[in-house]
Amino acid sequence: MKPSLLPAISPPRRILMGPGPSDISPRVYAALSAPTVGHLDPYYLKVMDGMQEMLRQVFQTKNELTLAVSGTGSSGMEACVVNLIEPGDRMLVCVNGVFGMRMADVATRAGAEVTTIEKEFGEIFSPEEIAEAVEKCNPKVVGIVHAETSTGALQPLEEISKIVHDAGSLILVDCVTSLGGIPVKVDEWNLDAVYSGTQKCLSCPPGLAPVTFSPQAVQVMDERKSKVASWYLDMSMVRQYWGGSRAYHDTAPINMNYALYEALRLVLEEGLENRFQRHMKNHLALKAGLKELGIEYSVPEGQQLPMLNSVFIPDGIDDAQIRKQLLNDYGIEIGGGLGPVKGKTWRIGLMGVSSEHSNVIQLLTALGQCLNQAGKNVDVKAAIAVAHAVRSNG
Amino acid sequence: MKPSLLPAISPPRRILMGPGPSDISPRVYAALSAPTVGHLDPYYLKVMDGMQEMLRQVFQTKNELTLAVSGTGSSGMEACVVNLIEPGDRMLVCVNGVFGMRMADVATRAGAEVTTIEKEFGEIFSPEEIAEAVEKCNPKVVGIVHAETSTGALQPLEEISKIVHDAGSLILVDCVTSLGGIPVKVDEWNLDAVYSGTQKCLSCPPGLAPVTFSPQAVQVMDERKSKVASWYLDMSMVRQYWGGSRAYHDTAPINMNYALYEALRLVLEEGLENRFQRHMKNHLALKAGLKELGIEYSVPEGQQLPMLNSVFIPDGIDDAQIRKQLLNDYGIEIGGGLGPVKGKTWRIGLMGVSSEHSNVIQLLTALGQCLNQAGKNVDVKAAIAVAHAVRSNG
Repeated sequence: MKPSLLPAISPPRRILMGPGPSDISPRVYAALSAPTVGHLDPYYLKVMDGMQEMLRQVFQTKNELTLAVSGTGSSGMEACVVNLIEPGDRMLVCVNGVFGMRMADVATRAGAEVTTIEKEFGEIFSPEEIAEAVEKCNPKVVGIVHAETSTGALQPLEEISKIVHDAGSLILVDCVTSLGGIPVKVDEWNLDAVYSGTQKCLSCPPGLAPVTFSPQAVQVMDERKSKVASWYLDMSMVRQYWGGSRAYHDTAPINMNYALYEALRLVLEEGLENRFQRHMKNHLALKAGLKELGIEYSVPEGQQLPMLNSVFIPDGIDDAQIRKQLLNDYGIEIGGGLGPVKGKTWRIGLMGVSSEHSNVIQLLTALGQCLNQAGKNVDVKAAIAVAHAVRSNG
Repeated sequence: MKPSLLPAISPPRRILMGPGPSDISPRVYAALSAPTVGHLDPYYLKVMDGMQEMLRQVFQTKNELTLAVSGTGSSGMEACVVNLIEPGDRMLVCVNGVFGMRMADVATRAGAEVTTIEKEFGEIFSPEEIAEAVEKCNPKVVGIVHAETSTGALQPLEEISKIVHDAGSLILVDCVTSLGGIPVKVDEWNLDAVYSGTQKCLSCPPGLAPVTFSPQAVQVMDERKSKVASWYLDMSMVRQYWGGSRAYHDTAPINMNYALYEALRLVLEEGLENRFQRHMKNHLALKAGLKELGIEYSVPEGQQLPMLNSVFIPDGIDDAQIRKQLLNDYGIEIGGGLGPVKGKTWRIGLMGVSSEHSNVIQLLTALGQCLNQAGKNVDVKAAIAVAHAVRSNG
């Protein structure tokens, strides 16, 4: 007797407007399921070269050591930390959300002497605060989050990077949510180690972590006295496979790399500036509509991420119930708050393919109707009208 | 001006008969490109449950902690090692190929006091040799490779596992190449930590590492005094996401998990015993045909892996040239030797979907023709005839 089989994969239709994954282009799905070839096949090596070339364009860098780590975004965080940090090294981590906390944890496990500076969730760091902390602890590496996925706050980097380098330190940056949605200018801002994920504004399924390292960061890695604690993430070996010698490291996730390759083609086909403008425009339309629904952003104006709209849940509204209703009745996924803001905020993503005017309208409609069912009295028509108006005037 | 775009993904047609990846079923490709949903979507949580259930069947275990690590097979190795080992713990690693060497490296990086016992590439360990080594170094963990992908040698485990447990140690086993192609009886053999890959006999694209941990292994993890060095691979957190609380860890590779789910359905639909027999039958047909071509196995009879046929390259034949010819003229990928047997052996995979009689015949035909072009005088027709005969008589 054969064992009774589980049902085949048949996912429900969703509109992905949470903190990632975002919706995926049919072209990316097609690439994902293109025939697998070997990880040393001449064709695949060309795909890797092309991916590196395109990742450099998206990261706005000439860094040679630019590739996709074979794991999700958090493996990119770990790869950046463990390759730069040796046991006993000092690292300053700026914590204003869950991903800053995570970075401090990763660095501690890597044996760093970690100093954290902390801000309330949703706030950002001023250059002065960074300068003071860097002066106090004289770190080898300063870790900071560009776009805090847990709070929706945007951390400007340019001035901070200058401060960090003037102190002789390296800057390590989390661009998981920002890459492909707002400018990430690795060379112009002089960032040393940057990681991202595929499932946010690049609109590729989760599973790879684009990373890039400056020549200074590579030099620090080359001068290590100890082996990197993680064999899997050791860039001294991984880069041999991506770079000249093609020495086998592990069997790369071929099909995921096909998908990212195609996702990057889509980004460059649209053009970075056009893509950033699209993200901003849909953010502004959503914001106008949400305001009409009586919903306020949890991050101050000017520090809001266009691709991740973190808003306060209105008084008397049950977080889980509304999100369940959006999912079950409208097929729309939005995210809840993480950490201390759990149950207090929603996170509405407009990332990559999901950043579409029609999604803005559908979300406003659905959320407005859910709020009215829950006893609020909001004007859904008005919300839609202002969102349309922002699009027309934008 | 838009940057000029690179060409779209369009892989050449290959028959994957190397050491993995293997060929993929259209059903797995379809699952791979099914619509992405969120990593906390109720639908996806059901997929995870189903996958755990099926992985347990394939691993032949009741182990609760059975899941797919979000990385390639080597990340599974690292996950097993870093979760069981704390700095200063003694680990015995049995090295008779590249993957034993790798395990020793991973364990050293994890802070283990590593003792290795070594055999020539292609040889296996006797229970007596393990008993002696375990008695000498009294390790917390013994690491060993079930199916050495670099050499094609099969290491019996049952007796060794008993010896290891009698000494109060845990056994950690690499089943990357064996799982789904020959029996891996985790419970019956009492294995404590086992990892595999998806791209071998499971015939799913590379990118995930199935792992399973015995209750004893889980207890050791629960009693750790230090945090696991890798945040990304820390099972104390990963299992919360796969298990009861569903606490967010990182954004899972949704689509890769869809693909593995479908690949596991295919394994169970065929039935484990049928699948093992298929692998054995095609191995025997290939072996008979290769013998007719004058090609000898590099591993003694009785210790050969059916899914990975490691053979000596005939005298006077150029490794790279023949493999290039097979790939370019016949679309067939086979593997070269790794480590000390580089240039001396070929590795011919008959894994999962690739384990087909038609592939055996195509490979014999292609290889025979290449050898004749290179000046040998082999009888291709005879090789095909004996392969057919083995199938008919099997």
